[in-house]
Amino acid sequence: MSARPKTAVTIDYESRIEKLKARLRRKKIDAILISRPENRRYLSGYKAPDHGINETSGLLFIPARGCARLLTDFRYQLQAEAETSLSVTLYQKGVIGLLNDLVSQSKAKRFAFESHYTLHSFSLKLSALAEKHKTELVPVTDLVERQRIIKSEEEIKLLRRSTALNEDVFLFIYDRITADMTEIETASAIESRMRQLGAEGPSFSTIVASGENGALPHAVPSEKVIGQHSAVTIDMGLVLDGYCSDMTRNFVVGNPDKTYTKIHRIVRQAQLAGIAAVKPGIQMKDVDRAARKIIADSGHGKYFGHALGHGVGLAVHEAPSLSFRSRRKLKPGMIITVEPGIYIPGWGGVRLENMVVVREDGGELLNNDTTFLDI
Amino acid sequence: MSARPKTAVTIDYESRIEKLKARLRRKKIDAILISRPENRRYLSGYKAPDHGINETSGLLFIPARGCARLLTDFRYQLQAEAETSLSVTLYQKGVIGLLNDLVSQSKAKRFAFESHYTLHSFSLKLSALAEKHKTELVPVTDLVERQRIIKSEEEIKLLRRSTALNEDVFLFIYDRITADMTEIETASAIESRMRQLGAEGPSFSTIVASGENGALPHAVPSEKVIGQHSAVTIDMGLVLDGYCSDMTRNFVVGNPDKTYTKIHRIVRQAQLAGIAAVKPGIQMKDVDRAARKIIADSGHGKYFGHALGHGVGLAVHEAPSLSFRSRRKLKPGMIITVEPGIYIPGWGGVRLENMVVVREDGGELLNNDTTFLDI
Repeated sequence: MSARPKTAVTIDYESRIEKLKARLRRKKIDAILISRPENRRYLSGYKAPDHGINETSGLLFIPARGCARLLTDFRYQLQAEAETSLSVTLYQKGVIGLLNDLVSQSKAKRFAFESHYTLHSFSLKLSALAEKHKTELVPVTDLVERQRIIKSEEEIKLLRRSTALNEDVFLFIYDRITADMTEIETASAIESRMRQLGAEGPSFSTIVASGENGALPHAVPSEKVIGQHSAVTIDMGLVLDGYCSDMTRNFVVGNPDKTYTKIHRIVRQAQLAGIAAVKPGIQMKDVDRAARKIIADSGHGKYFGHALGHGVGLAVHEAPSLSFRSRRKLKPGMIITVEPGIYIPGWGGVRLENMVVVREDGGELLNNDTTFLDI
Repeated sequence: MSARPKTAVTIDYESRIEKLKARLRRKKIDAILISRPENRRYLSGYKAPDHGINETSGLLFIPARGCARLLTDFRYQLQAEAETSLSVTLYQKGVIGLLNDLVSQSKAKRFAFESHYTLHSFSLKLSALAEKHKTELVPVTDLVERQRIIKSEEEIKLLRRSTALNEDVFLFIYDRITADMTEIETASAIESRMRQLGAEGPSFSTIVASGENGALPHAVPSEKVIGQHSAVTIDMGLVLDGYCSDMTRNFVVGNPDKTYTKIHRIVRQAQLAGIAAVKPGIQMKDVDRAARKIIADSGHGKYFGHALGHGVGLAVHEAPSLSFRSRRKLKPGMIITVEPGIYIPGWGGVRLENMVVVREDGGELLNNDTTFLDI
């Protein structure tokens, strides 16, 4: 049903793995176990999601020298073989049994695992295994993430496509939303439309918050009817070819009053100031500050409690964080959200969010800017 | 839109917490940090989901003596205060800062955390904190789960309600499914209908697998059109008042051929044999074996690679596991799925799944049995 013509985007998984292996060798790590689903997909093309952190659909075992493998179980074998060119090895008697063999074969002296996506309980089993093989166990936290933080032109193309489809869905709903719809109905219509247009699904649970509910930045859609002349915050994103979009729009069903218009304008000015500050070399906290200053100067500083934005890619929330504490710097190829908000308990809230790619000469918007729909 | 009359079900969160505290005292644990979302909801009533294991929407700090608290951040404050009667404490400067204060105040000598829902990277921070306060850090894996495994009559009522709504959704779709629909369209229609009827959402990503795709037990819906005379596996569940349902149906859009009818009958017989074996005191592996024997005797043993079933409650997959290895025993009040399957690569598959509550005198079906729709 999607009317957008698709040109093929080819991802070179092999060179991603080679790059990781080179980094492993530099760090004198002999093999790594990849457990984080986005990293697994990034390196292998294997798409199966995990059903929670306790139920992995597979792991990658990547030696610094030698062939990477995808480890999975019977249930995922056909999908894995269809989606990745890596060799697929099944664990018949649990993953630890198989890892015992692989660590032994690889003679790894230093064996790394993803500390930030491995449960403490599983790490105890890895420790026992490492002790048995006299291997040093090395927790790592951002090896693959560092590779993912800078997007290639192919990835930017996919993220732009995901964003464009997300906007199509938004405009479809915007044309049809009525004051008698509930928040849940609206969120459900959005997620249905996403799938109809070919998205893998929403990239997070769609937020539809009307009236006072807008004061909760992470509101869960309720059975509340939106109501005439009521403000609505819609925070939505979808997954297309693995890549996420994330966008927030805020508008009134009916006629906005003066307060709403004033708050909306302040947030929009803050957003534009944040986007204008985007350039290579600037510290995250300084981008945050550029937007936050507008809100603070308007007297609403205490109503903006979260960070200005975050990276987006295979995960909807990933590095970098545009936090007011972070001294890390923007680099070309990073993709970030810019999403200031004002949340007033008892009144409601306004948040506006676009995605921006960092280019040599500044920030380039990934969205068609539909922010100004009502103002 | 739901036509089902709802009588209120009151959950006594306070007595759940008191029971846990008594267990902590028996184990000489002075305080515990609860991170697993289902455990958090079970003990507090706070409904916010986590956005992945890296983004908690809150933690419980429960001292063996003294008042339990919900720890969360600014974004969730209003929701938390509305949903739980526990005192809500915000972490302004990260959760570790707050935990430092709480562990110090509580003078805990033994401080427990949920090893099976705590990232290794976070456990390193807890270790440093424990060292600073000369507290022993105690990893636990199933303290709250053991409490959750036996359902109260109120919980059984909620699980039955979730199952009944799930069947309503299934029958709605079953009446409307046509051979020209894609798997994705069908899954999307199912999930929309769930929300329309008042579910919080699906309890897992709905599986719609047609024809050969049925050979993948965890198939992801694709753009494949179902096709005339094609078998369809629909594995679906929803969340209602926090409680999950999980059900698999298998039927043909059009006319089933002889092979399909034969395989379907074998799986159905295996399911009935499994359900008939359910009673207090039987080992999990023996329930599994009762069903597996029928499939093995028919010559399809190698095409049934997964366990017979699993517990269902606030999580869609929880203890116990009806594994062919487990010597643990069924007890009254446990709720399990019974879901044998036959998966033949290149042909397709059949799986049938119902939910069963273990009663003193045997297994009681939670479903209205709609399994026989086509046979």
